[in-house]
Amino acid sequence: MNEKFERTNRCGDLRLADVGKSVIVIGWVQKRRNLGSLVFIDLRDRWGIVQVVVKPEDVELPDIRNEYIIQVFGKISKKDVPNKNLATGDIEIVADKVVLINTSEQPPIVISDDTDASEDIRLKYRYLDLRRQSMVNRFLTRAKITKCAHDYFSSNDFVNVETPYLSPSTPEGARDYLVPSRLKKGSFYALPQSPQLFKQMLMVAGFDRYYQVARCFRDEDLRADRQPDFTQIDVEMSFMNEDEILAMAEGFLKKVFKEVVDFDVQLPLRHMEYDDAVNFYGSDKPDTRFGMKLVDLKDILDKTEFGAWKDSKFIKAIKIEGIAEETSRKKQDEYNLLANKFGMKFYACFKVENDTLEGSLVKFMNPEQIKNVIQAMDAKNGDVIFVGSGNDKHNVCFGVGALRSMMAKKLNLIKPNTFDLLWVVHFPLFEKSEETGEIVAVHHPFTRPCDEDLSKLRTDPFNVYAYAYDIVINGYEAGGGSLRIYDQKVQQEIFEILGLTPERIQKKFGWFVDALKFGTPPHGGLAFGLDRLTMILSGTDNIRDVIAFPKNLAGVCPVTNAPYPVDEDQLKVLGIDIIKEK
Amino acid sequence: MNEKFERTNRCGDLRLADVGKSVIVIGWVQKRRNLGSLVFIDLRDRWGIVQVVVKPEDVELPDIRNEYIIQVFGKISKKDVPNKNLATGDIEIVADKVVLINTSEQPPIVISDDTDASEDIRLKYRYLDLRRQSMVNRFLTRAKITKCAHDYFSSNDFVNVETPYLSPSTPEGARDYLVPSRLKKGSFYALPQSPQLFKQMLMVAGFDRYYQVARCFRDEDLRADRQPDFTQIDVEMSFMNEDEILAMAEGFLKKVFKEVVDFDVQLPLRHMEYDDAVNFYGSDKPDTRFGMKLVDLKDILDKTEFGAWKDSKFIKAIKIEGIAEETSRKKQDEYNLLANKFGMKFYACFKVENDTLEGSLVKFMNPEQIKNVIQAMDAKNGDVIFVGSGNDKHNVCFGVGALRSMMAKKLNLIKPNTFDLLWVVHFPLFEKSEETGEIVAVHHPFTRPCDEDLSKLRTDPFNVYAYAYDIVINGYEAGGGSLRIYDQKVQQEIFEILGLTPERIQKKFGWFVDALKFGTPPHGGLAFGLDRLTMILSGTDNIRDVIAFPKNLAGVCPVTNAPYPVDEDQLKVLGIDIIKEK
Repeated sequence: MNEKFERTNRCGDLRLADVGKSVIVIGWVQKRRNLGSLVFIDLRDRWGIVQVVVKPEDVELPDIRNEYIIQVFGKISKKDVPNKNLATGDIEIVADKVVLINTSEQPPIVISDDTDASEDIRLKYRYLDLRRQSMVNRFLTRAKITKCAHDYFSSNDFVNVETPYLSPSTPEGARDYLVPSRLKKGSFYALPQSPQLFKQMLMVAGFDRYYQVARCFRDEDLRADRQPDFTQIDVEMSFMNEDEILAMAEGFLKKVFKEVVDFDVQLPLRHMEYDDAVNFYGSDKPDTRFGMKLVDLKDILDKTEFGAWKDSKFIKAIKIEGIAEETSRKKQDEYNLLANKFGMKFYACFKVENDTLEGSLVKFMNPEQIKNVIQAMDAKNGDVIFVGSGNDKHNVCFGVGALRSMMAKKLNLIKPNTFDLLWVVHFPLFEKSEETGEIVAVHHPFTRPCDEDLSKLRTDPFNVYAYAYDIVINGYEAGGGSLRIYDQKVQQEIFEILGLTPERIQKKFGWFVDALKFGTPPHGGLAFGLDRLTMILSGTDNIRDVIAFPKNLAGVCPVTNAPYPVDEDQLKVLGIDIIKEK
Repeated sequence: MNEKFERTNRCGDLRLADVGKSVIVIGWVQKRRNLGSLVFIDLRDRWGIVQVVVKPEDVELPDIRNEYIIQVFGKISKKDVPNKNLATGDIEIVADKVVLINTSEQPPIVISDDTDASEDIRLKYRYLDLRRQSMVNRFLTRAKITKCAHDYFSSNDFVNVETPYLSPSTPEGARDYLVPSRLKKGSFYALPQSPQLFKQMLMVAGFDRYYQVARCFRDEDLRADRQPDFTQIDVEMSFMNEDEILAMAEGFLKKVFKEVVDFDVQLPLRHMEYDDAVNFYGSDKPDTRFGMKLVDLKDILDKTEFGAWKDSKFIKAIKIEGIAEETSRKKQDEYNLLANKFGMKFYACFKVENDTLEGSLVKFMNPEQIKNVIQAMDAKNGDVIFVGSGNDKHNVCFGVGALRSMMAKKLNLIKPNTFDLLWVVHFPLFEKSEETGEIVAVHHPFTRPCDEDLSKLRTDPFNVYAYAYDIVINGYEAGGGSLRIYDQKVQQEIFEILGLTPERIQKKFGWFVDALKFGTPPHGGLAFGLDRLTMILSGTDNIRDVIAFPKNLAGVCPVTNAPYPVDEDQLKVLGIDIIKEK
């Protein structure tokens, strides 16, 4: 029989109450200080760090270096001067015996929460980076959220069902990752962008309540907050209306926030209409931890002499208190880069000084208009007012909304250590495609229009709203979903409005449309972004911090270097070839 | 606000205790019998079927057909004659009101446990097939096993970590599914065959205990018991020896069997050495619910005059009781097809009659030898003895073992309604590759050799055993794993024995070998096959019965028809091309 590696305790668990106990611990050597007559070792395991004291004159000490693994037999002793930086800082282990279990090469990064290693190096040596307590904690948080999902949804009678990863390619939406088929050469599976249609089929199958912690794949260009694959807590339920579905989802969030960060979420959550989110926060995921709501100045400003305003269909403004002094011309230019991004030329900027407005456009306004603006904005001397204008509502609102968020961060206006959860509900059903100008579904063509808008489907489609909702936490979209159409006539009408001929429907998702004909229950659901939830609950803005082995911005796994070229034989057997660069 | 679909109860939940209650249920119409003054409806939901009685003269009844969805308001009444076939059979719902929720086309299969539809049709209309109670139950079983895994391993301090699905391709073992990279054209990810190396890196990272319910992918030719992807309950732990790891795994199995099928597994489980499994059961996954152990007749039969025996290095036999009369020449020919599959010419067959052996080869034996065979086999008149022989131990043992299993099934010798769990331990570390004749690792090159065999590594490698183990249930391999090498010197020696040069190592898994240098803890683990466990616990031999949307033998999803050809543009953007058939 092979050896036993006895442990009585975890390094990070030891406390004052353990003083006097004989213990055996195993861990990695975090640090070693040799004072001659005493050697101090910081010993680390997943649970934390404990200090070990060895008297070389009494105890045989093997040659140990950083990241060596040792087993320590000893007795817990109270420290004269507690180390406030360690949870175990009240005690230390006085060693009787030290056994070397494994050696280590000199690690290329400092394994400590205040490491100075670049993210590139940390990702390359991820197995060392993950030894840092701050990283471990994020994965413990992630695992706790997942466990909450399993507990909550199974106890509410949801069935955990695994849907296929080798799926059909969907010819719209984001780009699919393809998987060539060897048995059917020239054909391809796609990795699923979500289990959407499969979970709806499970409702057709009468499963009533389904959930899955599912990996999803999108071959889009990568950004700091995006990975090629991500994980959804995916749920779907039958015979429930919008309120009931949101209440079910809220119960999960309440449990997660309580169990993971001991935060009490007050239920029911606020519902904000999509239109209000856009009009008042310039966002479909408003951060309501601070005010600075958008104010509509259209009625006031389109009567001024300034041509750009007169020609603008939409004029929105925000007020920022007490920053008049520091708002230089140069800073305004900086902000205007953001305006450009949203298709606006600039943000008009006014300072409120001496009970009037200051700024280059004031000359186009009469005293009445100036007074009205100050009043509408409820502005005081020292405040600054930014005004965005243009003919595209989305661009104007989202442009001013982006400035609102930027200023709030810059000026530290966001209430710290709190979580602000709300639903944004009733998204539009249709939008104009930016590329083609055609009418397209905002979510997918199976999203159910609001009953009261059904009569407008053909006459005024862009004013039709859907039973579609997002859960927004601290300005992040942490999940979303919708009710689905179960009425065949409505479904047919939507297809016609989207210009989908029977042939195209059959080709795209005929198998799914067929399924809906056999007694489809009213159903709906949503998906929570597990990565996003973990980021919010573990306080990081970097999605790579919550994925054990993430890809870098080039889509490469820095540990393994995947993807890489494969043998030609491997491709031949799949019936594919690499296109040679000319 | 959209409509509410009120339910007070589930169809399948109603019992005698509910008599007199007013209820609202929703379900699918399973069956409808119109007796004129009374209409009987069998109404079905995920929880079961309940009978509804409608008096058309009192209650307005919409036109309803099979698989229509209706909501029924009514009162529970005791049935005069209980229906023993239904769990709800003591009662019926006398309807006050029936509301039609959705219609259905005529379903192409009979939705009932005794459906006569072919598997092809059932798979094509999987969303209808899954409405059958026997199918639903399998997915409830599967979900329960998964939930047990999450509960058991989290409560034992295992961290659930998700490892990458876009992985490096591993140049040996089964064939990988490849995923072309768009950002790095000409390069490919592979879908992981298992999270093996990533979970070991998590041990290097100090996670101490890891688990994951992980999808795994192998592009092998499909068989009835094989799917392109399958699910593992994957675990790994540090600082534990073989006994401790097996005990940890047993705790999980005990919980699963108790919670899912209320079966008490007696712990600790039996350990059977791999060599004993092969010698006595002719299998590395012996079914020990019945006897018929293999007997070694080499010492007796190689002294006979029969050339094939004299030339055979291995001779193994089984005895089957009381089948002499029915063992015709024709039947023997049938069995010999099985012998051929294992590289043997035939099974020699003797009937025991009149206290001696009967059979064509008896003429080569003297009375002493005949007597010895009867004695060694402990045979009685009416028994039949089958003898396999040859020079390849594996072929002879597994060939006779396969006959043993076949005869046991044929003759119904297997104790029903029981579960027989055991560990097969200490698999060989190396084997000869069937294709190349080279020495290869039985599991993978990181499997740890038994301490007592270390000295034989170079001198007698095929007699080196590993700390490798499989969990065997009712003759199925339900999981397996091993301890991993953590000693760099041993690892180096294994690489050398396998003929891996430093260059090849670097190319194949250099990143992993590098990781092992930085303080690797002693570690090991295993993976349970979730599909297999579900099959065992829900009593099916067909893996497609436990996968919601399985592939057929051509690797095609019968519902969606995936994989299929994609637009040329989609391939171009990935830098690949389809090789045209000549």
